Amino acid sequence: MSPLPPTADHAWLPPDPGHDLGSRAVAIDATGPLGETVRAELVALTARHGGSVSSPEGATVVLMTADRAADAGIDLEALEEVGDIPDDGFALVRAAGNVAVVGGSDRGLLYGFHHVRRAGLDLDAPDGVEVDAPAHPIRMLDHWDNVAVHPVMGRVERGYSGGSLFYDDGRLRPDLTRVGHYARLLASVGINRVALNNVNVHAAEARLLTDRLHDVVRLAEVFRPQGITVYLSVSFSSPMTLGGLPTADPLEESVQSWWRAAVDRVYDAIPDFGGFVVKADSEGQPGPFGYGRTHGDGANMLGRALAPHGGEVFWRAFVYNHQQDWRDRSTDRARAAYDHFAPLDGTFDDNVILQVKHGPMDFQVREPVSPVIGAVPRTRLALELQVTQEYTGQQRHACYLAPMWSQVLGFPFGDDAAPSVSQLVAGAAGAAADASAEAHSGGVVAVSNVGADEHWTGHPFAQANLYALGRLAWDPDLSPEGILDEWLGATFDDDAVRDAARSIMTGSWQTYESYTAPLGVGWMVRPGHHYGPDVDGYEYTPWGTYHFADRDGIGVDRSVATGTGYAGLYPEPWASRYERPETTPDELLLFFHHVPYTHRLHSGKTVIQHIYDSHFEGVERVEEMVAAWEAVADRAPSAVAQRVGERLAEQLRSAVEWRDQINTYFLRKSGIPDEQGRTIY
Amino acid sequence: MSPLPPTADHAWLPPDPGHDLGSRAVAIDATGPLGETVRAELVALTARHGGSVSSPEGATVVLMTADRAADAGIDLEALEEVGDIPDDGFALVRAAGNVAVVGGSDRGLLYGFHHVRRAGLDLDAPDGVEVDAPAHPIRMLDHWDNVAVHPVMGRVERGYSGGSLFYDDGRLRPDLTRVGHYARLLASVGINRVALNNVNVHAAEARLLTDRLHDVVRLAEVFRPQGITVYLSVSFSSPMTLGGLPTADPLEESVQSWWRAAVDRVYDAIPDFGGFVVKADSEGQPGPFGYGRTHGDGANMLGRALAPHGGEVFWRAFVYNHQQDWRDRSTDRARAAYDHFAPLDGTFDDNVILQVKHGPMDFQVREPVSPVIGAVPRTRLALELQVTQEYTGQQRHACYLAPMWSQVLGFPFGDDAAPSVSQLVAGAAGAAADASAEAHSGGVVAVSNVGADEHWTGHPFAQANLYALGRLAWDPDLSPEGILDEWLGATFDDDAVRDAARSIMTGSWQTYESYTAPLGVGWMVRPGHHYGPDVDGYEYTPWGTYHFADRDGIGVDRSVATGTGYAGLYPEPWASRYERPETTPDELLLFFHHVPYTHRLHSGKTVIQHIYDSHFEGVERVEEMVAAWEAVADRAPSAVAQRVGERLAEQLRSAVEWRDQINTYFLRKSGIPDEQGRTIY
Repeated sequence: MSPLPPTADHAWLPPDPGHDLGSRAVAIDATGPLGETVRAELVALTARHGGSVSSPEGATVVLMTADRAADAGIDLEALEEVGDIPDDGFALVRAAGNVAVVGGSDRGLLYGFHHVRRAGLDLDAPDGVEVDAPAHPIRMLDHWDNVAVHPVMGRVERGYSGGSLFYDDGRLRPDLTRVGHYARLLASVGINRVALNNVNVHAAEARLLTDRLHDVVRLAEVFRPQGITVYLSVSFSSPMTLGGLPTADPLEESVQSWWRAAVDRVYDAIPDFGGFVVKADSEGQPGPFGYGRTHGDGANMLGRALAPHGGEVFWRAFVYNHQQDWRDRSTDRARAAYDHFAPLDGTFDDNVILQVKHGPMDFQVREPVSPVIGAVPRTRLALELQVTQEYTGQQRHACYLAPMWSQVLGFPFGDDAAPSVSQLVAGAAGAAADASAEAHSGGVVAVSNVGADEHWTGHPFAQANLYALGRLAWDPDLSPEGILDEWLGATFDDDAVRDAARSIMTGSWQTYESYTAPLGVGWMVRPGHHYGPDVDGYEYTPWGTYHFADRDGIGVDRSVATGTGYAGLYPEPWASRYERPETTPDELLLFFHHVPYTHRLHSGKTVIQHIYDSHFEGVERVEEMVAAWEAVADRAPSAVAQRVGERLAEQLRSAVEWRDQINTYFLRKSGIPDEQGRTIY
Repeated sequence: MSPLPPTADHAWLPPDPGHDLGSRAVAIDATGPLGETVRAELVALTARHGGSVSSPEGATVVLMTADRAADAGIDLEALEEVGDIPDDGFALVRAAGNVAVVGGSDRGLLYGFHHVRRAGLDLDAPDGVEVDAPAHPIRMLDHWDNVAVHPVMGRVERGYSGGSLFYDDGRLRPDLTRVGHYARLLASVGINRVALNNVNVHAAEARLLTDRLHDVVRLAEVFRPQGITVYLSVSFSSPMTLGGLPTADPLEESVQSWWRAAVDRVYDAIPDFGGFVVKADSEGQPGPFGYGRTHGDGANMLGRALAPHGGEVFWRAFVYNHQQDWRDRSTDRARAAYDHFAPLDGTFDDNVILQVKHGPMDFQVREPVSPVIGAVPRTRLALELQVTQEYTGQQRHACYLAPMWSQVLGFPFGDDAAPSVSQLVAGAAGAAADASAEAHSGGVVAVSNVGADEHWTGHPFAQANLYALGRLAWDPDLSPEGILDEWLGATFDDDAVRDAARSIMTGSWQTYESYTAPLGVGWMVRPGHHYGPDVDGYEYTPWGTYHFADRDGIGVDRSVATGTGYAGLYPEPWASRYERPETTPDELLLFFHHVPYTHRLHSGKTVIQHIYDSHFEGVERVEEMVAAWEAVADRAPSAVAQRVGERLAEQLRSAVEWRDQINTYFLRKSGIPDEQGRTIY
């Protein structure tokens, strides 16, 4: 057993802030577990700051759900002007110096509470009603946690924050106190769903569905008071491995009834259970292809077992041939999800959500937006992001990912008037298609970066990514800079520390990109663990991840005219823009085209000089990060100061390694010297 | 528990052959466990072939030890003419159609028996005395077996034959029957020492020295009747990890006395225990450097604990910096063993044997001979060979290694009159230095390739390597072709099968070399597991294993004039020959020199064309192997036919992969097309 650390830091919910709310007379009119949660928050807050939890009559601030607003004497006319408050949303009703926080549901109330705790009451604002509601109904975290330690992947697949918060040594942790704290952190930024186990479902994890169900019950109990519904990743072959059936064919009645019975048992134990996450026919996981069935057959079979209980299936679109022949240049992994799933649009049941990674490959530091997102208007969608920094420094490097996510969410799928990725996954395309928005709502799913580490996320600054994920899932129009300021303000007391952390985090995604893989080429990492450089590491493998660098040039030709045709999977103007090197954005040039090292970018630099410059500059930027932190470290909490210092030292070491290996590789291959004559080995 | 297969093949000791001896009246005059072993062999042999074990008077063949020859009425004069029979040797005394097999010791008698069983009696030979004795007193196998399954390395480090023959699931196998069969196979080719556990000593294995000693007792009981002495690999930090001392400093009296006591306990339990094998200060294993002591201090400390009992220390010279900076071209791993150990010559106690890998790196398919072997005339030496095919196809590829070992053993360390590697490790240099040959005798140690597999060695043909290792350790002047014929004759009944196997095995080392790493460059393998190609896999790592390929050329400059100076570590004429590309043998060119791809070899080809040609030809050769086996497979035992067929199919798949990756890598890098226009990707 590896015990959890005795204390963990408070992340963005330290006890002190919240004075604006906690110093007043506040009232709450709500029942049920979430009402109790808010009440307890208010009691703690007012006790700390000198306020009180009083009756509505004497209160400055009243919190309630919309269905109780009439009883509470709220100005219903003003409220009705804004129409119904969405379930997960809330309204702030201001009248004569008082504020009512009206949740569209219990969950909306909880989010309203966290809003005023965080943003303050703004009592000087004019009377009126202000509604805040999430852009995406689905705001979910997937945990790639293993119950039993996996011989290769360990306790959390792609986990960089110690062990699992949930499981240890093959069983559920007896003490789930920290899971409760975690759930509160998630609720404070609006997360409403959590999947409890790795999408690669190994033997012990599979049994969470059956004889380990009591573990799920206990976790659901901990997440429930924070408005978070729990989900399980399940193996498509469960009817065979757990049920002893001879097949897992989704069209076999025995299989269907096995799943129905399994689902019924789950809902008997957990009436508000969320549903399943499924990685099928992907990287060796079983799926419907094994029975000659479509992914529609597979997903709908599970959906129909869950539907009577209101459950959902998150069906991952991450399906590709991971046993490709590297000699075969006609097969393009980037096309795979599109080719598999675009033809299935319209065949999925209403409670099936297609979960699509934001890029066509796999969470590289730079990818174009997945064309699947614009290709399935009659399918519910979840955009899959990766908070855990698998390919972006593994929480040893500071890498603030909100700017990447913000770009993805805002990407217009067509001309400027076209819906953005955020709007598409929220359901805009479906709503436009048949005016039934409800059935088409989706959202954002992200792989969590949290573990048993005392700072939750290994690198304390990686907390900002988790925070930002929640905030962008709520409102994709928030600026990454603004979110960072919110997080800094909530996390650190000292202005100098905030300034240093801000300077380290701002631009850190581009910095990571600059010293690792250039111009969208990706995959220059060590195979397997994915940390550190190995330019040819994936070049001759079956993974479909190639750069084709030779002595003359580099990049993958994905044009329609001469390449794999991938560029043509986008709507205009993107298809035309991506088709030619001249109109492709520099940062994606090598993703779409094979060009000579002497090709001149829009920046004016040649490709080879860009490689050299960006790698030298990336390291310089990390040196600045190190210096910025050293200047303020003694003003930060000592555990944070030490951890951040260690991680920055490793980031610098690693960045130097990236710089030298990448530059050396390309100097040896191209023979073109650095214009500035810097040291390359 | 993974059970041993119910049956294993007989390898080169099937029950049927031996008719020449088994059909006669034979007598044996010997006592002790080895005498009993020979007696049991004779009883079984005569029972099968119609002969009898009789009294010496009526016998055609008599077997005895030299000290009993007078009593047995042997022609002592003839015997005395040849002088003393060496301990492990034997004499064949022929007189009037009868043969006496006279062992120099019990062990010599056992080897004499196996000789006549294998070679026949040759009763028509003229009267006289013929003595056969091993060239090397030390003929040892090291097992890299783990007691407990290692999370990365598994049950046998670099083992390709199933699990360990000794251990399973963290404990000694209850049934050691197959270990007994294994010991008999080893005795039949003259092996006299076995180390029982991995040189990387993990926690469970360390305890073989202390509270798991009973396991060693049981193994010793199984090896003893075959004349094989058992050894343990021990961890240098045992006094700390097992003894709870605060240090393992070899100059601390408490450490010395801990080792003395540990050794005393071992000899109480196993009076004929052999001693220790030690990997110290090597790839993360602890050693004397940690205490500022020399390897002389470390080895002698252990030697002095063992000396009172007649035990020996095998101290590995495999010491190098495995955390080297790849940017640093002045550090040369090939120099490391020489630089560490040549200065220590003369400082090791008489019961310390320096165990030196045959090449300066680590068992690559082609390396020069280690210069250490010629640099320590006052040190006992063991040449370390690797029967397990770590870098030579992992027993999935047919690769008959005897030609490599034969070259190494016969390599003259100086001009043509200089002693060979075999003579040096046997003790020639020491004997020349101070005329005390006894104290300088050494020999051959090899890493075993045997496991729990039903064919012993994964690939049935890999048995030939184990057989050849024993035969060459006995007599390095035997021809690899002759040894192969011996093995084929002993192993297969069918002439066509023998012919096919011979054609597959002959030249298979060069074939493996041809489709893998060209011209001595080495290390183009996947890091970690070392199977399959990855040209740059080790290029930017800390392992000291680089090829420095750029767009113009490839190879490591190890000359004195412009390189690392490694070439100068050899005596003349080798130092001068290796110093210049023009005089370096083609097969080692890239080991010693960095040359342009257009450099012309002695063969007349350019380096780049050699790369292409050898890789295409290597695959063609494997295709011929496949065809040769297919033609005879139905004449071989079905289990062997199937296994060999599977392995050859994998060898072909892998050879194609090597060919295409290596050729593609160098075409992309050099830009020079294949003269024959064959397909490169």
